[in-house]
Amino acid sequence: MGEDMTEVRIIPVVGVPDVRPGDDLPAQVVTAVGNENLQDGDVLVIAQKVVSKAEGRLVSGTDRLAAARSESARILRRSGDMIISETRHGFVCANAGVDESNVEGEHVALLPLDPDLSARRIRERIRHLTGVEVGVVVSDTFGRAWRLGQTNVAVGVAGMDCFVDYRGTFDAYGKELVATRICAADEIAGAAELVMGKTKRICAAIVRGANVRPGRSSARDVVRPIDEDLFR
Amino acid sequence: MGEDMTEVRIIPVVGVPDVRPGDDLPAQVVTAVGNENLQDGDVLVIAQKVVSKAEGRLVSGTDRLAAARSESARILRRSGDMIISETRHGFVCANAGVDESNVEGEHVALLPLDPDLSARRIRERIRHLTGVEVGVVVSDTFGRAWRLGQTNVAVGVAGMDCFVDYRGTFDAYGKELVATRICAADEIAGAAELVMGKTKRICAAIVRGANVRPGRSSARDVVRPIDEDLFR
Repeated sequence: MGEDMTEVRIIPVVGVPDVRPGDDLPAQVVTAVGNENLQDGDVLVIAQKVVSKAEGRLVSGTDRLAAARSESARILRRSGDMIISETRHGFVCANAGVDESNVEGEHVALLPLDPDLSARRIRERIRHLTGVEVGVVVSDTFGRAWRLGQTNVAVGVAGMDCFVDYRGTFDAYGKELVATRICAADEIAGAAELVMGKTKRICAAIVRGANVRPGRSSARDVVRPIDEDLFR
Repeated sequence: MGEDMTEVRIIPVVGVPDVRPGDDLPAQVVTAVGNENLQDGDVLVIAQKVVSKAEGRLVSGTDRLAAARSESARILRRSGDMIISETRHGFVCANAGVDESNVEGEHVALLPLDPDLSARRIRERIRHLTGVEVGVVVSDTFGRAWRLGQTNVAVGVAGMDCFVDYRGTFDAYGKELVATRICAADEIAGAAELVMGKTKRICAAIVRGANVRPGRSSARDVVRPIDEDLFR
């Protein structure tokens, strides 16, 4: 979507109100951004937490671990009061993505039932409201194997290719690149985190100028098939 | 280093010449950027490949696997002609970070002996040349467990805190955040990849406005200690 040699801008979306079940989240985002400030090819990154809230994916009670177990397709490891599990979507993360931060009162938020569908609906609604074609990334904060700290990654994607695939292309010296396929969707989710933070009520960002292609891939395409996964 | 609510810019550094052993890489970057275009608080992200070239970390011959073995402290998995190993720095990645892409002729590039030291030297040299205090991230392209595709991560860091640590702070609803510590250095490395690519000879980018603090942490601080790592 961007052009070579141009910079990428990561623009925080400020002013989305507290999101409640049933809210028209894309309309809230469009109002906050301002109709005229969205451009074809922008990628809207939106935090899973507000998508889950708008979809009513909240459960009351403080037993996060019970909710995490119930949201897990498979438990991979346990560590203290945390589990690392595979969600029904195939994502491997802590507590099946269930958590209570930035959720009001005694509730925990679950991941959307189908975050790719959530992303597609947000994209369609924004097109309906503004006529603008954006890519959408629903992002969540995941830990990683081998490295400390978390980064934001894509759990739902619409209107863009998750990957920039260099396999079969040639580097600056004419050597064929045989293995390089960048997960741009995850890099975009992480880039957006740099302006979203955790304590500022900024639940969305626009990434403008990133070198991603329009496409139909989904965040489930990022899930490494179990039989190709050497670390489980 | 940035302020709340402001956007983050990812600016490609265009015009760094082909880097050769012994080159003054920071001076090449400063010339390409233009002295007046660096600002205090910018993070300069620079590809490991050019750092390795400038440091002469090239070996001739096409036996990448032998070089990868020799660069490994520990081999974790094998898959075809690839190994996944732990480097002497502690990083877990394919082929101990040894690869031949974007290297001239029949050579492969190894990771710098001490990429944090490389980052500190680049930072000091830039300060000497320009008077500007930048953070430096030396980035490389790593695969991940569980997720397909690679992302750029930090293998060397200087002049900034790798993490934005929310533990003990409070979310928008006053709930204490108990586990969230974002690895901003990796998110910044990934964000920079969005403008660097693999085939355009753009080996560096400036990330401006990211919410990172000055600090003395190093990329080795991102390595998860073996006894805390559940996925080996």
